[in-house]
Amino acid sequence: MNQSVVIAPIGESLPDFLSSKQYSKIIVIADNNTKRHCYPILKAFLPKHSIVTVPSGEAHKTLATCEKIWEAMTKDELDRHALVINVGGGVIGDMGGFCAAVYKRGIDFIQVPTTLLSQVDASVGGKLGIDFQGFKNHLGVFNIPKSVLIDPVFLKTLPEREIRSGFAEIVKHCLIADGAKWEEIRAKDFEEQKWPDLIAHSVKIKQQVVDQDPTEKGLRKILNFGHTLGHAVETCFLNKPANQRLFHGEAIAVGMIMEAYLSFERKMIDQQTLTDIEEFLFATYGKVKIKPEDIEEIIALTRQDKKNKGKEIRFSLLSGAGQCAFDIVVTAAEMRRSIAYYLG
Amino acid sequence: MNQSVVIAPIGESLPDFLSSKQYSKIIVIADNNTKRHCYPILKAFLPKHSIVTVPSGEAHKTLATCEKIWEAMTKDELDRHALVINVGGGVIGDMGGFCAAVYKRGIDFIQVPTTLLSQVDASVGGKLGIDFQGFKNHLGVFNIPKSVLIDPVFLKTLPEREIRSGFAEIVKHCLIADGAKWEEIRAKDFEEQKWPDLIAHSVKIKQQVVDQDPTEKGLRKILNFGHTLGHAVETCFLNKPANQRLFHGEAIAVGMIMEAYLSFERKMIDQQTLTDIEEFLFATYGKVKIKPEDIEEIIALTRQDKKNKGKEIRFSLLSGAGQCAFDIVVTAAEMRRSIAYYLG
Repeated sequence: MNQSVVIAPIGESLPDFLSSKQYSKIIVIADNNTKRHCYPILKAFLPKHSIVTVPSGEAHKTLATCEKIWEAMTKDELDRHALVINVGGGVIGDMGGFCAAVYKRGIDFIQVPTTLLSQVDASVGGKLGIDFQGFKNHLGVFNIPKSVLIDPVFLKTLPEREIRSGFAEIVKHCLIADGAKWEEIRAKDFEEQKWPDLIAHSVKIKQQVVDQDPTEKGLRKILNFGHTLGHAVETCFLNKPANQRLFHGEAIAVGMIMEAYLSFERKMIDQQTLTDIEEFLFATYGKVKIKPEDIEEIIALTRQDKKNKGKEIRFSLLSGAGQCAFDIVVTAAEMRRSIAYYLG
Repeated sequence: MNQSVVIAPIGESLPDFLSSKQYSKIIVIADNNTKRHCYPILKAFLPKHSIVTVPSGEAHKTLATCEKIWEAMTKDELDRHALVINVGGGVIGDMGGFCAAVYKRGIDFIQVPTTLLSQVDASVGGKLGIDFQGFKNHLGVFNIPKSVLIDPVFLKTLPEREIRSGFAEIVKHCLIADGAKWEEIRAKDFEEQKWPDLIAHSVKIKQQVVDQDPTEKGLRKILNFGHTLGHAVETCFLNKPANQRLFHGEAIAVGMIMEAYLSFERKMIDQQTLTDIEEFLFATYGKVKIKPEDIEEIIALTRQDKKNKGKEIRFSLLSGAGQCAFDIVVTAAEMRRSIAYYLG
């Protein structure tokens, strides 16, 4: 894949990138929030361009929103030599990248991730897509952006809850691939973490994994630690009142505790490691209120996970602090116990 | 790309293919016609599977039809180890392939092309897609099928007009890449052509071109000879009463005459070659009634051609009988003259 990721002030990285190739037209894709808070930071460094703004939030990561984007691209008469610049979090990156990858069978795009979550996770690795009928990332393609321009300055535009959510993927990267870094971050409170260092660390781990297995035939599945049950919890909460909605990282934190428990039950990690993970994640994220009637729904939702094969639900589980195994078949009974463990 | 293409009775090629890999589920995508006429021929050789049927015709090669297909795939709980079998002409192959390539970021699919056109053209080369807002193949991806199973027996299910339409792409393949074969086919009437031989010949030429340039950065553009104006004529006629609609190959025959004229005007082919092409195509396809008021619409429609760069309309033009050049910028005035030449 050799994906280009640049961590630098956008005022340097963007002009640098644009000088590399002559684009016929440029279109920026943003949402309501990033148009107001992030686009002004970029605008000064862009030549003539157009912008399409979509409503913010996962609820709009749909085919209907893609149609609006494709309509704007068509109206602008973008040809195959045009560039799409996605300015936003994971939703904009995934959806805008998907729209670019499908328009005229694919035009160039770059990601300007503006949330911690998208900086450390979504923007790297070439997974693009949208939700369909309530299933997350059910439609999509693999396609790598021409570049990912990460500027920590955008984090200043974010509410703290958003940063805390992104931190969950940093924790995940440490847990699956770097035990020493895990010890380092768990020794600090959330407020003491050093973002530029952690962003670079996470990007590096993700790139190393993705380089070895771009289309997730094997190893890449370790990036899904915490995500099988985490996604199911996230989807389950989508149908709840807005004030109970979970941010992605909050759901993944739940999933990581449950899946650390599964790892423990399978004797893949010891009691102390489980306790460390659980204490750190509860201290950082608190406990999410999962109701007894949610449990079977969460288990049922894991059936749509893309790692499954046939009727088997396959997990990526820790085989140590800093190590992860994949393609581990887990039963509904085990999942039930792991949810019960989380609920305590 | 190394695309697998098997020309053989489907009763041999299909079981052969299926024995190569264990699929979790199989779904057949067909249209009204191929479900009735072609699916029964395959069915005997298929293990347990489901089928999704969509309305036939280019008018249904849309995102709305894709949604129906994705809904069926989701309802069937297809996982990433499932197989899609597209049974039909170019519309089913392009759209069914696109649906498979996007479902859960891509699952395996095979093409069973049932028209001459799709056997010699659409099924080879990995171009997938759908129309959008009236623009042909405006959304799509490049992705190769696991195999293309071509059985000339399916041609017996087709009306003659459909076969004649497919023949246009065979003519094109000869004109752009094999002057000797062009002499061979133009010495025969349509009724005397040998389909199994011509199918194998066309598939070979297309594969050779596509192998050298899978994503159409350069050479592959020669396959678009006749298609810049041909697509524009086809699109223009989409808005006419149903009894005036053109089949794809009929529009491409028009485009080939116009673009042969452009090649002649640029002194890339001589008068005799132009005359040969024109006489053969008029004898085979007759003359399409293009009205004076259609001309500017046709020219305007070439602006959406995917080979263009910025405001330039780029053509692939013959540089001899059996040779083709690409990225040739043509003006609206030249196009006007070529349409006038066609109208005579």
